[in-house]
Amino acid sequence: MKILTAIDSMKGSLTSKQANTVIKKVFEAAGHEVFTVSIADGGEGTMEALIENASAEYCQTEVHNLQMKKITAEFGWIAATKTAILEAAEASGIQFTDFTEQTHPKNTNSYGTGELIKQALDVGAKRIIIGIGGTGTVDGGIGLASALGVEFFDSKNEKIHSVSGKDLRRIEAISLELLDSRIAEIELIIASDVDNFLIGAAGAVKMFGQQKGILSEEIDEYESWMEHYADILYKQAKPAKGDGAAGGIGAALRILLKAKVFPGFQFIAKEIGLDEKISKMDLVITGEGKMDNQSLHGKVPVGISSLAQKYQIPVVAFAGAFEGDKDRFKEAGIQAIVPIVDKITTLEEAMSQASVNLERAASRTLDLIELFKTE
Amino acid sequence: MKILTAIDSMKGSLTSKQANTVIKKVFEAAGHEVFTVSIADGGEGTMEALIENASAEYCQTEVHNLQMKKITAEFGWIAATKTAILEAAEASGIQFTDFTEQTHPKNTNSYGTGELIKQALDVGAKRIIIGIGGTGTVDGGIGLASALGVEFFDSKNEKIHSVSGKDLRRIEAISLELLDSRIAEIELIIASDVDNFLIGAAGAVKMFGQQKGILSEEIDEYESWMEHYADILYKQAKPAKGDGAAGGIGAALRILLKAKVFPGFQFIAKEIGLDEKISKMDLVITGEGKMDNQSLHGKVPVGISSLAQKYQIPVVAFAGAFEGDKDRFKEAGIQAIVPIVDKITTLEEAMSQASVNLERAASRTLDLIELFKTE
Repeated sequence: MKILTAIDSMKGSLTSKQANTVIKKVFEAAGHEVFTVSIADGGEGTMEALIENASAEYCQTEVHNLQMKKITAEFGWIAATKTAILEAAEASGIQFTDFTEQTHPKNTNSYGTGELIKQALDVGAKRIIIGIGGTGTVDGGIGLASALGVEFFDSKNEKIHSVSGKDLRRIEAISLELLDSRIAEIELIIASDVDNFLIGAAGAVKMFGQQKGILSEEIDEYESWMEHYADILYKQAKPAKGDGAAGGIGAALRILLKAKVFPGFQFIAKEIGLDEKISKMDLVITGEGKMDNQSLHGKVPVGISSLAQKYQIPVVAFAGAFEGDKDRFKEAGIQAIVPIVDKITTLEEAMSQASVNLERAASRTLDLIELFKTE
Repeated sequence: MKILTAIDSMKGSLTSKQANTVIKKVFEAAGHEVFTVSIADGGEGTMEALIENASAEYCQTEVHNLQMKKITAEFGWIAATKTAILEAAEASGIQFTDFTEQTHPKNTNSYGTGELIKQALDVGAKRIIIGIGGTGTVDGGIGLASALGVEFFDSKNEKIHSVSGKDLRRIEAISLELLDSRIAEIELIIASDVDNFLIGAAGAVKMFGQQKGILSEEIDEYESWMEHYADILYKQAKPAKGDGAAGGIGAALRILLKAKVFPGFQFIAKEIGLDEKISKMDLVITGEGKMDNQSLHGKVPVGISSLAQKYQIPVVAFAGAFEGDKDRFKEAGIQAIVPIVDKITTLEEAMSQASVNLERAASRTLDLIELFKTE
């Protein structure tokens, strides 16, 4: 059989590439031809997926992280198409947050992500793709914008220097006069897995603030700062879904830097020619860490199966945990879902054993598939 | 497909019949023809297996349990062949042990199991099959034997009345003079899953004594009592494997009552015509609670698969927990092993959820089997 494996990363245990490698090993040992595709939905693993599949080079550069410490960050570079592949989390990622006062979102900013864009421009990028999942900032993207020359002014019309989350409340005017002029000449693309608005109950603050370190008793006040910023920002354009991604980086990129926003999976799938790859297969394997009925909306496995369904190719999904309605997944083209856990275990054990658990799951799946397979 | 399901009981959670019913439901819903066979290996569920498959009647009777309390016990009765199907655990089962002084093996006996045999003789049995798993007694079967007229004498040649475990040390002579004469006229059969000797490291005391309530510091002394009894008993016949079953009931039945001993699974399989049933199937499903490499020796799943292998019929096994070497099971004819646990869970949860867990496991197995099945 020709098999394509495209499993989403399993948060905290396996990257997409690692999961695919396990599947490849098991099915190749049984004589099948296995093709791997690193995949993501705009969140974690987006840069890896795009880079792996395009055989891009990795470029290293120095930027400031959300603590404003200098760090070495990477981005992908496809010389042929002058395309840079960036991930906001490289500079502004939650991994730099230690839940102290210093890394509280009010005191941090997305400046480093702006620097990444600048570096990409410096190497001659004509097309910049940004994956914006996994950030630790809630600054409405003003740090990022300021790194590229956007200026923010307070009520006294004085420029706010080194903007951070707490400055959102002070912004009365935004000037694009000094914005890096190269931005207008390139294609700037957001690949996002988040379609939340900037403000409101499902916004950047109320929905994602606490996991980034905003205390529950601070949420309402922080939301009022974001609302104030929104009032100013939305003078330039109407609110849109996705503005709330990455603590508001989504809004700043879209409105101030004129980025185009694409749903992560669809964009990546198109970018790497996934449809055509799938069309030639006998079986497609996908999966993700946690699968439930939410996974039916825009997540990797169902994205994959909707492509496979066009060609009537069966799809098997491996799930770290499955808590959905199987019949709905069947309708969406996933014929079988195989949970990876196969014995009494704790979550910690299961996460640390993800690779061998996946290997066993793949192996018994193969046993069952081949039970009556004639050919 | 024609499917036969014969899953061993899963201790503490599902009987063989219950497990088969779950499988039947799932596979019938998908349009398959499913035949169920209650199965056991001589241990727990043996009586049920024999009765279910022979459509025997259940007879109720009064006997003494191991505490010498009167209880209602059941045995199976096949009128056509005048066959009685007994289970030692009905009267002498570990479930009557409460780990107090009163139910300590030294103070209990297998008298009730002897009464069961007597009842079977009273209703006219010409053939008595005894499953001897799950007992709580360690009396060398002297209680059972005495219920049928066997007499035990001490060093003063005085008859020991109401024998129990602690009397093993006092026995100096055994008389079969008053043994119920009907015993000699019938076929008495032991279906056993245990091939341990009566004494020694893997014997009735050292191997099984502690789980029945003998304290570790008492084991050596208790073993010396059993050794003394063995010296007397083995004047009549040589030691044999299986004598250590059921606290020594195996030895007493074989030597004093001339019972024939059969490995439980093979006997049951033959008794219910399992070989022929399997020969007509497209798929055989089996399983047990815990499967490990020990299951390769005489347990239900491998017993089933050795029959299926003759006819090249694929076998899938469901396991509460699987910790064996998959390749060795494949060699033994089990092509796929599907663990029932499919998420983070505790043992207690898994046991109490065994039915729905098995149902999900069956359902996803069906999904995978049917993925490429042509027909």
